[in-house]
Amino acid sequence: MPVRGGKTRNRWELESLLSGEYSMDPEEGPRGQEAASTSYGASPRNGPKLRLGRRFSSDEELLDTITSKDPVLERAEQFTNVNMASERFQSSSTIMDTLEDLPPGIGQYDDFHTIDWLRDVARDRTRHRQVVKKKQNGCLEYIKGAHDAWSGWMCVLLVGIIAGCLAGVIDIGASWLSDIKEGICMDAFWLNREQCCWSSNDTHLSGDHCKQWYSWADMMGVKSNGGDYIVKYIFYMLWGCAFALTAAMFVRVFAPYACGSGVPEIKTILSGFIIRGYLGKWTLLTKSVGMMLSTAAGLSLGKEGPYVHVVCCIGNIISYFFPKYSKNEAKKREVLSAASAAGVSVAFGAPIGGVLFSLEEVSYYFPLKTLWRSFFCALAAAFVLRSINPFGTDHLVMFYIEYNEPWYLQELVPFVLIGALGGLLGSLFIKFNIKWCRYRKTSALGKYPIIEVLVITFVTTLLSFPNPYTRMNSSELIRQLVSRCGPEDNSDLCGYQRNFTDPQAYMSSAYVGEGVRRALWQLFLALVFKAVITVFTFGMKVPAGLFIPSMAVGAIMGRMIGIGMEQLVLANKDSAIFKNMCQGGCMVTPGLYAMVGAAATLGGVTRMTVSLVVIMFELTGGLQYIVPLMLAVMASKWVGDALCKQGIYDAHIRLNGYPFLDNKEEFTHTTIAADVMRPRRNDPPLSVITQDTMTLEQIEMLLKDTEHNGFPVVVSMDSQYLVGFVTRRDLKLAIANGRKNVEGVVSDSIVYFANQIPSNMVGPAPLKLRKILDLAPVTITDQTPMETVVEMFRKLGLRQTLVTVNGRLLGVITKKDVLRHIVQLQNQDPDSILFN
Amino acid sequence: MPVRGGKTRNRWELESLLSGEYSMDPEEGPRGQEAASTSYGASPRNGPKLRLGRRFSSDEELLDTITSKDPVLERAEQFTNVNMASERFQSSSTIMDTLEDLPPGIGQYDDFHTIDWLRDVARDRTRHRQVVKKKQNGCLEYIKGAHDAWSGWMCVLLVGIIAGCLAGVIDIGASWLSDIKEGICMDAFWLNREQCCWSSNDTHLSGDHCKQWYSWADMMGVKSNGGDYIVKYIFYMLWGCAFALTAAMFVRVFAPYACGSGVPEIKTILSGFIIRGYLGKWTLLTKSVGMMLSTAAGLSLGKEGPYVHVVCCIGNIISYFFPKYSKNEAKKREVLSAASAAGVSVAFGAPIGGVLFSLEEVSYYFPLKTLWRSFFCALAAAFVLRSINPFGTDHLVMFYIEYNEPWYLQELVPFVLIGALGGLLGSLFIKFNIKWCRYRKTSALGKYPIIEVLVITFVTTLLSFPNPYTRMNSSELIRQLVSRCGPEDNSDLCGYQRNFTDPQAYMSSAYVGEGVRRALWQLFLALVFKAVITVFTFGMKVPAGLFIPSMAVGAIMGRMIGIGMEQLVLANKDSAIFKNMCQGGCMVTPGLYAMVGAAATLGGVTRMTVSLVVIMFELTGGLQYIVPLMLAVMASKWVGDALCKQGIYDAHIRLNGYPFLDNKEEFTHTTIAADVMRPRRNDPPLSVITQDTMTLEQIEMLLKDTEHNGFPVVVSMDSQYLVGFVTRRDLKLAIANGRKNVEGVVSDSIVYFANQIPSNMVGPAPLKLRKILDLAPVTITDQTPMETVVEMFRKLGLRQTLVTVNGRLLGVITKKDVLRHIVQLQNQDPDSILFN
Repeated sequence: MPVRGGKTRNRWELESLLSGEYSMDPEEGPRGQEAASTSYGASPRNGPKLRLGRRFSSDEELLDTITSKDPVLERAEQFTNVNMASERFQSSSTIMDTLEDLPPGIGQYDDFHTIDWLRDVARDRTRHRQVVKKKQNGCLEYIKGAHDAWSGWMCVLLVGIIAGCLAGVIDIGASWLSDIKEGICMDAFWLNREQCCWSSNDTHLSGDHCKQWYSWADMMGVKSNGGDYIVKYIFYMLWGCAFALTAAMFVRVFAPYACGSGVPEIKTILSGFIIRGYLGKWTLLTKSVGMMLSTAAGLSLGKEGPYVHVVCCIGNIISYFFPKYSKNEAKKREVLSAASAAGVSVAFGAPIGGVLFSLEEVSYYFPLKTLWRSFFCALAAAFVLRSINPFGTDHLVMFYIEYNEPWYLQELVPFVLIGALGGLLGSLFIKFNIKWCRYRKTSALGKYPIIEVLVITFVTTLLSFPNPYTRMNSSELIRQLVSRCGPEDNSDLCGYQRNFTDPQAYMSSAYVGEGVRRALWQLFLALVFKAVITVFTFGMKVPAGLFIPSMAVGAIMGRMIGIGMEQLVLANKDSAIFKNMCQGGCMVTPGLYAMVGAAATLGGVTRMTVSLVVIMFELTGGLQYIVPLMLAVMASKWVGDALCKQGIYDAHIRLNGYPFLDNKEEFTHTTIAADVMRPRRNDPPLSVITQDTMTLEQIEMLLKDTEHNGFPVVVSMDSQYLVGFVTRRDLKLAIANGRKNVEGVVSDSIVYFANQIPSNMVGPAPLKLRKILDLAPVTITDQTPMETVVEMFRKLGLRQTLVTVNGRLLGVITKKDVLRHIVQLQNQDPDSILFN
Repeated sequence: MPVRGGKTRNRWELESLLSGEYSMDPEEGPRGQEAASTSYGASPRNGPKLRLGRRFSSDEELLDTITSKDPVLERAEQFTNVNMASERFQSSSTIMDTLEDLPPGIGQYDDFHTIDWLRDVARDRTRHRQVVKKKQNGCLEYIKGAHDAWSGWMCVLLVGIIAGCLAGVIDIGASWLSDIKEGICMDAFWLNREQCCWSSNDTHLSGDHCKQWYSWADMMGVKSNGGDYIVKYIFYMLWGCAFALTAAMFVRVFAPYACGSGVPEIKTILSGFIIRGYLGKWTLLTKSVGMMLSTAAGLSLGKEGPYVHVVCCIGNIISYFFPKYSKNEAKKREVLSAASAAGVSVAFGAPIGGVLFSLEEVSYYFPLKTLWRSFFCALAAAFVLRSINPFGTDHLVMFYIEYNEPWYLQELVPFVLIGALGGLLGSLFIKFNIKWCRYRKTSALGKYPIIEVLVITFVTTLLSFPNPYTRMNSSELIRQLVSRCGPEDNSDLCGYQRNFTDPQAYMSSAYVGEGVRRALWQLFLALVFKAVITVFTFGMKVPAGLFIPSMAVGAIMGRMIGIGMEQLVLANKDSAIFKNMCQGGCMVTPGLYAMVGAAATLGGVTRMTVSLVVIMFELTGGLQYIVPLMLAVMASKWVGDALCKQGIYDAHIRLNGYPFLDNKEEFTHTTIAADVMRPRRNDPPLSVITQDTMTLEQIEMLLKDTEHNGFPVVVSMDSQYLVGFVTRRDLKLAIANGRKNVEGVVSDSIVYFANQIPSNMVGPAPLKLRKILDLAPVTITDQTPMETVVEMFRKLGLRQTLVTVNGRLLGVITKKDVLRHIVQLQNQDPDSILFN
């Protein structure tokens, strides 16, 4: 064989190594069922060690082997060959470095396909070894190697920094837009109210007013009290609708993927699925702008979930600058895991909560290395955001609580109650939201997303303006609810029967006054309104997160129960039950109840546990309330799980039919691999390729007639003993190259996947393709229980597995087969799986 | 075949299902190497669905199948058979419930063996399904089912409660013993100093003295200042040596496993290894008492690591009351994971840190369900401990810091420096400690553990008494170091040049005075002494933890750097660099530096990251210092990893040769399965059993001649096509039963593992053993890269995998082969692996 041929083959071998579609959907194909009688013997173990065709053998090794085996090369040449080898070596490294020159799609997966983790991880190790080996080749290579070693940290550092900056911009922008609804800064319209009043050096800041800040009523010249209210109301609604409309239009025109919270999709992507464009630059831009607008519109949604999506977009974009990550989908997911941690980190200023959120809720494959990177990324993001300081406070903590009161054992009863109510509210929310979303999908409503957004915004703004607790920003509402009343506080919530001049009076509970009674009514209305409207809001075609609305609902509930508890204790201060709480003054802090309520409801909606408690700590600084918080979150999870198994994200994944193999659910059925594998009992047999009998034409026919993404290679049609697995893409490339570059290859050529070619061969030149064969496909037996199969798919991140019995091939199980099977066992339509 | 035979077979089938040794160490045995020529055909897929012999088929199914297939049973009987079937059913359930009646060892593993996670998890699912099915059989079964469903939570709740109680007892005991070294309460000797002074109603509490508390010098009647000191010194040393001696004797006599921290062993156990007695009641008792004594002895060790071990013992003992856990080693490890979380939770009052410690450092298999259970367990433990309140404070927080000062960007430089120093100190500690431990193992020193303990205690007490910072309890030292000086503080550490009467002066930094200078010297000596003595202390035969000593070393280092930084800033308060730190007074808090130093050194020693930061928060309440802490911990980890790859626990695992397959290390070599599998190239072939040709005698010979724990079953010696895998234990039980209970079985009987027996068979009655065959062994091909194999071993928790090529059996790889291979690639002695 001429050197040229060898070289060329080498080229496509590399390509095929870098490419690879392993998925297959076997439907038909010839297969013999008879007993086997094979004389295939020569155990490879006794022959020369076969390193050639092994899975993911490193490129140099391939080159080495070709070089040393090439019959044309003289022995003398082998000694003077160093330069040449290093040249080839160089060329292989060039291929690695400039993968962009290759046809598009090489080394990548198609859209809506599942990745093969095992393969990608192995490919990365190969690449890593190559880099380490090259390090000895001089200074430049050494630097390259060092760069490669640090690029993981560098990449997450960049993601963190950019995430922090962008979050600062978004926070400032959202706050400006939010203030614009009420008025404008006359001196400099680009300032929000707080900055405007700062810049005007106005010390007269009572009631959020200062000289430079003109409300729209002021601008219109309306002075009367009623007219003022109406003008404000109208502007509030107009701006709200305008913002929501703009956000919806942006999403519609620029990036349809920018809607919703994005967490379900990111969970799916992290589990090893490809959704092209979901983390692209257009999505990033649209979502960033859209979330400012939709939050500012006054809709019942937060920007915390979308932050996760936005930072994941940043992670995806940054990873393009690091070939280590851009060329390897499994490695890229490590960056995305870190990015989602950074997302929560900037959303709440909670770096550790972010890492745990990524671990508990979002990520699929989370080795300790990723844990450390996520930690670093979240830290960098939080640090940058803190330096930008968009809220103008020195606390990283959003809802900082100043109190440090002890809690009493008796209070655990209301805390558990709040937890259970939170779980109940969360489950109801999930049920109704899913029902509504399903209705939207199936009815005409889905065709008019912008009108839907407008209507919901109209209703929201119309109903929320009159109630101060719905009119204000949800974050501000939560902050008020979890706080304790101080002497300076003259809001309704603090309208207790207290001696206002005595600061000591604020250290203990008091009877409710007129203000609290009014506040309770308004809070109750706000609770109902927010709980209902969020059901309709989440799922609309605007960027929308769930964290803040559900926390707000929970905080309202908690505060109300807290006030109730406070009055109960005060009314029974001498009873045996409450005696120990009332030494001096009674000590019940309704703010603590609000905090517990916020955690419980969020827990009920998302079913987070540890990460949620940590996020609550980082949000409030209330480390001393660990037991109440944990207890409420556990109660919420139990009640929630009893009512409805899935959290909101999993429910949306199921609703949208994403191929997500949940690693929380246990597989409890008694089926075995033989029940799931294809072909089924009455299907035509599996399409296979034999290792040394099929002609080029036959294989080309097979490729034409079937649509499988890969084919098992067997010893012979009769015996069906499994040799390996070849992907459609590799096969196509190899055949095209063989026809073009290998002399004497015609349609009648036998294609050899076998190790040896019989010496007495007649006929046209054969085509040897053993090198594109995956000799290590994952196999199971037909009697393997499906729980083991599911476990293997989950833990090894398989794309498909071959089913054998006594070494003979029976069928194949793909990830989608597993998903369909699980859905079928739950008596649901198996066709609901798959992206739709 | 008579019903009786069927019934009996059924009995041992169950046994063999419940039992199981999968490990094998193939060394020799007959095996054909020739080319295969087999006519084994009949594809099972075309026959009736084979559910019989499949792996871990549920017992009822087995019974059902036997019933329906039994040729003796009349058709009529089948209809009147309900009672009988339910009786059998009952008997099978009795076997499940009263496994204690079975011969010991059934369903368990031998000591120093590896468990098979896949198999155990599958077994649990089978058991679970059985329980769910039975639920319909009446009220009692329903209650049993509900009990089973809740037993997971119940078990961890009990573990948590008992852990909390025991921790309270240990804390109180250790504090009493610690005080006994200095004096005794005259009224009631069982009170420690604090309680003694409380009970005496003595308001005169200055200098830790009160009327009822008699120091030993008082008791001896020594009044002179010098004599007083000497008496105290002598008693300090005497008591110290007495405590240490008692602890060492206890360990020696009652439970040798009670020494050390226990964390490396628990890591190994959680990775799926059996060390009998390591978590037993004697270890629990000995370790509980021993850790009180060894902490009180004044040795440089903590009781935080041992707490993990103690609570794991509790977990193990409690799990015996829940058959779900006691019968299943994989499930038991879920309880142990939760228990180790509870251990850290009670050690530091850090429930979330405990969960993360369990996740990051200790656990191997940590599904989300375990995360929630751990969380609950840690919460229960912390809550009970808080209710007992052994420290007499209302804070769960051990080293509560009251300050809330901001930190400045410039301070990040010293923080990173502290982090790097922490990593350096940690790595040096690991290196020297491992060297010393290796010396102890190989030299005569190892033979005199009690003398070693006595000598080290003598040296420790001798050197630590004169220095106040080494004399005091390490926890107390850390608490002082991380605190800020307040007006009431008149210790040396607070001897600044301040206006003592002005409380405002304490809000900012001041120049050092005489006191601080003296303290710095003493701290430096304490640093050196503690760093050195801990190297010799950790690894002695007394219960000894590392957390507190390393934190103390780090806190000393941090405090010293903090004081240096403080003085630097004060001296350059007008320079551009420090200007922003000195508005009004300069703001440097040396306590913060101590906190960062403690975290950094602990990080350097253990290489924890996220869990460490969370533990630090929970220990100090310093949530606002997240960035400094995280940065220092990252710096410490980087520097540490650069100097020495493994943390102290992993280093001790390696030192002791535990078979621990680290899931942090990446496998980066290019070897393939064929390089690792046994038999090696020149070894005798693998011992295998054929499915339908070997006689009973031949198999018995094989069992006698080899020591493998299992045998692959192949189609024929010639073809070597793999059928399944049978364990030695199952095979032995089955043969013994066959000889006894099956009519006509003699030494010449053919043993059938095949599905069908030829109808024209002649000779003695055959023995059919297909049912004990594992028809779903995990197989790989010989070309599978070792990185994939290691991944499979890690993630699926395999015990062994069979190596095939084209369906034909080539060899076997056990977990120990993998471990030996990894060690070999690191150029170390492969025989160092295995418990020794």
